[in-house]
Amino acid sequence: MNTNGDQYESTIVSDGSITGLVPTVSDENIVRRTSPALSGDGDSPVKYRTPYAVLPSTESFEDVGRRTIYAIDCGGSLVKVVYTCIEEDENTNELESRLKFRKFQRIEHCLEFIRAHSNASGYGTIESPIMCTGGGAFKYEALIGQTLNLKVEPIDEMAALVKGCCFLLKYIKDESFTYHHDEEPFKQYQYRPIEQTVAFPFQLVNIGTGISVIKIESENEFARIGGSTMGGGAFTGLGSLLTSAKSFDDLLKKAEKGDHRNVDTLVADIASTSHDTLGLPDSLIAGSFGKCVDMKKRDELRGKEQSENDMTKSLLLMFSNSIGQMATLYGKQHQVKRIYFGGYFIRKHPLTMRTISYAVNYWSKGEIEALFLKHEGYIGAVGAFLEHLNQVKSDSS
Amino acid sequence: MNTNGDQYESTIVSDGSITGLVPTVSDENIVRRTSPALSGDGDSPVKYRTPYAVLPSTESFEDVGRRTIYAIDCGGSLVKVVYTCIEEDENTNELESRLKFRKFQRIEHCLEFIRAHSNASGYGTIESPIMCTGGGAFKYEALIGQTLNLKVEPIDEMAALVKGCCFLLKYIKDESFTYHHDEEPFKQYQYRPIEQTVAFPFQLVNIGTGISVIKIESENEFARIGGSTMGGGAFTGLGSLLTSAKSFDDLLKKAEKGDHRNVDTLVADIASTSHDTLGLPDSLIAGSFGKCVDMKKRDELRGKEQSENDMTKSLLLMFSNSIGQMATLYGKQHQVKRIYFGGYFIRKHPLTMRTISYAVNYWSKGEIEALFLKHEGYIGAVGAFLEHLNQVKSDSS
Repeated sequence: MNTNGDQYESTIVSDGSITGLVPTVSDENIVRRTSPALSGDGDSPVKYRTPYAVLPSTESFEDVGRRTIYAIDCGGSLVKVVYTCIEEDENTNELESRLKFRKFQRIEHCLEFIRAHSNASGYGTIESPIMCTGGGAFKYEALIGQTLNLKVEPIDEMAALVKGCCFLLKYIKDESFTYHHDEEPFKQYQYRPIEQTVAFPFQLVNIGTGISVIKIESENEFARIGGSTMGGGAFTGLGSLLTSAKSFDDLLKKAEKGDHRNVDTLVADIASTSHDTLGLPDSLIAGSFGKCVDMKKRDELRGKEQSENDMTKSLLLMFSNSIGQMATLYGKQHQVKRIYFGGYFIRKHPLTMRTISYAVNYWSKGEIEALFLKHEGYIGAVGAFLEHLNQVKSDSS
Repeated sequence: MNTNGDQYESTIVSDGSITGLVPTVSDENIVRRTSPALSGDGDSPVKYRTPYAVLPSTESFEDVGRRTIYAIDCGGSLVKVVYTCIEEDENTNELESRLKFRKFQRIEHCLEFIRAHSNASGYGTIESPIMCTGGGAFKYEALIGQTLNLKVEPIDEMAALVKGCCFLLKYIKDESFTYHHDEEPFKQYQYRPIEQTVAFPFQLVNIGTGISVIKIESENEFARIGGSTMGGGAFTGLGSLLTSAKSFDDLLKKAEKGDHRNVDTLVADIASTSHDTLGLPDSLIAGSFGKCVDMKKRDELRGKEQSENDMTKSLLLMFSNSIGQMATLYGKQHQVKRIYFGGYFIRKHPLTMRTISYAVNYWSKGEIEALFLKHEGYIGAVGAFLEHLNQVKSDSS
């Protein structure tokens, strides 16, 4: 199997153990729990990877793990696939049906994976039709069908995102969490399961190549209320042009080592701190990349590794801030209290989550909460998988 | 006088002649007129320069042209100055008091200009105090005072912007206009004077190094309701890092020659056009710079002049679109019908105005109108000038 250029994901264990209880603040139906499941990854290279999801043991999902089901999400930059398996719980040794996740940069590699994996699994032929969502669903319909020799059914992108998101929030333990950068490590990730009775309405901001903003009233009532071209594609594209980074992950590493204050114009750079009438803190960014306007400075910055890191950090802050602000403005307009951020841009990166959380809190004056999703990159693919279960069930009934 | 690195502005004539009447659409108190004053500049290099403003011939402004008044706006990247003079109208040969405008990249050059200009004008010493606004007002207070040997009074940035904007809209002929790219040339710029009785509330989006969004209820009632770090500083900084451009104007020239479709991911690049369920047009950008995510493509793009132009166009569209969208979201939240865009980013550039106008119209579903200002870059400086008149009058009365 050709894996060149692809970054396969391993699956890691989310033990979901509860280490503390934090009293509810804003809504008594929302239970706040902290868990080391994500923060416990420490410095391991798998720290930002997507853990498997345990399917609920209700009738609808009975034995799903033994069936050979794949669902695909063809985005503007990445192809994501979810598939089922049955595995033993590490603690109880009981068998459970799981959803697993992989991403690819090319559709061909995704299809090679599915073919090889389904052959190796020994569960028999892939269930037809294979559901495919994302902006590229129609474009690759024929290729997928021919390569895997089965029927392909394109699924509306927004519908898949909504279905996937509602399912994950309803059934997957500790799916959503808030991020608190300034807390002690074990309190940084606060898991936020939510009672179904108060879950709706909410807003989903899916950050792929571009961004979609969706208001969700229920699983079947939703509207794409906005969007932006300034998503993961723009960040990665600009970052790649500005630096020697070879991938999105490279860019994140660079950003971690960077200091944006070397390239951004801060409030303190313009104003005299003691008389600042806008009441803005000195360290606030007045203009991203403002220091690069000067040609001498620009020439100094070029080609230096530290400068590349500084620029990447500035870029990540600019994008995260802008996304958080836009999301909040839509959220206020549509009167939601919670915004879930999904898509493959966030990658559970602390810098990104911190900036988005800060922006949402700042621009909403604390009225709206930014939440992140453990399976952020696979929401649409999960929705397509659910649509497969739905259709196969209704076909057989 | 050292003018290195500065781009002095000439003043050009705005004849303000009326070439046609377009019936009012949305509000019977708003008179739409078309005028060749700006579009008539053709390809002349002064086409985007700021024309002088004729002061009203009311008592408050009587003889102001004969007085030696300067007011300064110290921004994050540029220093702007307005000054008074008395000149002959080209058509009537009558003398009129005028406001003139210059911008500098360094405060030192601005002060040299003021010193040389006031000496040459022969109207006597500069009136004290000299008003100074902008984020850098306090920072340069001492330098300005020492260099010009007079008292400096820092003026709150937001208050100056509001005062300047209200004055320009009230007194300056054809100050504000809408831009209609797809109209015949003589209809592209539609002047939009507005009756004072229906002028308020409106929103001012001032795009300097960073962006301020201000809701204006009256000349004295206003609030900074939002802002962004993605203004002219970020565009110029990123553009300078990505290309060989030496200035903001260089970047605009590059953008004019560029084709963003070579670097952006369009809806058509992802989706199969015939089945596109989002109902978005093919030519719509799905992700800015999305095509640069591919490393091979990135390496191909680097260092090529045409690619630099393409990137610059993509960048300008991304920024203009994002600014238009953000402005609209604030506008909807605060229920305004008109958003005026000021600051030195727009530079009356058709591509920028077209994109902002499109974004505001698209995201507001036609409910909000984007307007531009002939003296866009000097709103704050005009406000500081007015504050000088106010203070000197109240001192002497």
